[in-house]
Amino acid sequence: MTDALIAEDALLSLATRALVKGGMAGEDAAPAARVLVLADLFGLRTHGVGRVAQYLARVRVGGIDARAPVRATRVAPGLALVDGANGIGPLVGVRALEAAMASAREVGIGAAFARASNHFGPIMPYAYIAAQEGFASVIGTNATTTIAPWGGRGTRLGNNPLGIGVPAPGGDPVILDLAMSVAARAKIRRALKDGAALPEGWATDAEGRPTTDPAAALGGFLLPFGGHKGYGLALMVDLLSGLLSGAAYLTHVRAWDKEPEARQDLGHVFILIDTKCLGDAGALAARMEDFKRIVRSTPAADPARPVRLPGDLELEAMARQRRHGVAVAAEDLAALEALVGGPVG
Amino acid sequence: MTDALIAEDALLSLATRALVKGGMAGEDAAPAARVLVLADLFGLRTHGVGRVAQYLARVRVGGIDARAPVRATRVAPGLALVDGANGIGPLVGVRALEAAMASAREVGIGAAFARASNHFGPIMPYAYIAAQEGFASVIGTNATTTIAPWGGRGTRLGNNPLGIGVPAPGGDPVILDLAMSVAARAKIRRALKDGAALPEGWATDAEGRPTTDPAAALGGFLLPFGGHKGYGLALMVDLLSGLLSGAAYLTHVRAWDKEPEARQDLGHVFILIDTKCLGDAGALAARMEDFKRIVRSTPAADPARPVRLPGDLELEAMARQRRHGVAVAAEDLAALEALVGGPVG
Repeated sequence: MTDALIAEDALLSLATRALVKGGMAGEDAAPAARVLVLADLFGLRTHGVGRVAQYLARVRVGGIDARAPVRATRVAPGLALVDGANGIGPLVGVRALEAAMASAREVGIGAAFARASNHFGPIMPYAYIAAQEGFASVIGTNATTTIAPWGGRGTRLGNNPLGIGVPAPGGDPVILDLAMSVAARAKIRRALKDGAALPEGWATDAEGRPTTDPAAALGGFLLPFGGHKGYGLALMVDLLSGLLSGAAYLTHVRAWDKEPEARQDLGHVFILIDTKCLGDAGALAARMEDFKRIVRSTPAADPARPVRLPGDLELEAMARQRRHGVAVAAEDLAALEALVGGPVG
Repeated sequence: MTDALIAEDALLSLATRALVKGGMAGEDAAPAARVLVLADLFGLRTHGVGRVAQYLARVRVGGIDARAPVRATRVAPGLALVDGANGIGPLVGVRALEAAMASAREVGIGAAFARASNHFGPIMPYAYIAAQEGFASVIGTNATTTIAPWGGRGTRLGNNPLGIGVPAPGGDPVILDLAMSVAARAKIRRALKDGAALPEGWATDAEGRPTTDPAAALGGFLLPFGGHKGYGLALMVDLLSGLLSGAAYLTHVRAWDKEPEARQDLGHVFILIDTKCLGDAGALAARMEDFKRIVRSTPAADPARPVRLPGDLELEAMARQRRHGVAVAAEDLAALEALVGGPVG
């Protein structure tokens, strides 16, 4: 598969227009597209603009409502419940992020619990937007079930990612975006395509037996990272994002790939903390620089691979791609152009 | 080592009196002792009343101030900064928990960031107290450095535990209390004592090479669970609990075992969400029961080991020990009795 390079602005415009062609209002399409473009900027290409065609395919079969009236209701000064109304996931995500930031601006901390949502992209874009405005964040979502409970045979849990971000005023934030499986399902699909065996520890077959056969793994389940610890985290993220929000959870979540026309009813949680209430921005900047310096000064086990902070690779990719253009798979770009009705002008 | 069984009330009274003898005011000693007794009830005995003697040994050498004027300052309706004033850790923890709960009662969500603290026990007691009052919680602390950054040689990070709890009104909450190393340092000390080799993957020697020799491991560092993912989590917990609170972080944290007379300046973060704002308690109870049922109904890989939820083992231990007495190491009980000046009456 070949890559195309495209400027960030052009990609944002193209993705926005594709979403509008797919039925979204312009004021909804732009922030949703921004999340996906940020994903591509970070190099998280499996969760970038390549998802637009997939989202719109579900719109066409009635599985997602492009015109969903997403609504946030403030239930306490610091809390909002967001009804995603089965809208495009990144739109629901952005509206929930905005609601949580509005609360945090008022009372120092705010949370939004969203239900009736769909796949909202990766977490890093939300944590990045929050950090740019001085907010620390804890963000999670549930997902289609792919993981078995520890010691169990049968998928009950999604790969429920958890993100944590802390801003460094005037510098790069530190952002962790953590999926709960050892490896992503997309990597197993790629191994199947390439005819390659999986490393041990990634997945089991349908009977819960460890396997290195990608076909057996796709019929079985992903293993959580760190064994029972990753299982526990995936479960707690489902409780926070799915159960507490009023969304579906565990096996109540329908699989978008098997039932594209069904409502997924995913849930998200956004917790935002206004770091300006905790102290002076200058002091925070100095402490963050000191923190980064201490971590990066750790002698590396392999001198060619210096110690990094969570998010470093993605933020480096962003800086590079803002200079030289954003790499997008040629077929994804072609799909977007087809959606808007012709090559980008 | 033999165990003694003692009733919860008697253990709480004994631990409280020992802390008072050590210099604490009664109204400070009782809630601190409660945290440690809850730890023993949960079976988390390395973090229970056995810590009283250790805390008081540090008080005697000036490392901890038993009379510390712990103070919470509300910096926004939803946020408090807590100055632990180098007090006994569980006291600082309880005061921070109370401050966060007070905010959450008012605005739906609240957070407390504590600095100038010490080892505060395990997280589960705090999450349990919060859940009993209807709060979901995200709680973390930093700790003495024992873990190397991923790909690095040299300890920079603590085992920085993260806890997440969700209440089930009228039933048991679900609580995850997650340390970031594959295995606790206490287990390595026990292996050394027993002359046993460590399982692979627990630790490295001082050069960062994997080792199964407990002596080499104690001179080296613990490995994070899940490789770079556990490393990332440990780092983010330090940012939230240590850096944002104004406490020490990374290598600024002094080791209590090597420098018992030094101020550790540990930091904690408590985020509390009032679930009553998110919906009706009856509905939450029903959804939590459904959630537990779905997880527990997963076919077990080994039929003798049914699938469990985070916290199940600890809550079962609590129910059992409330009926039959709390198991405490005889030498820990004797140490408490010696501290209060005689056998328990």
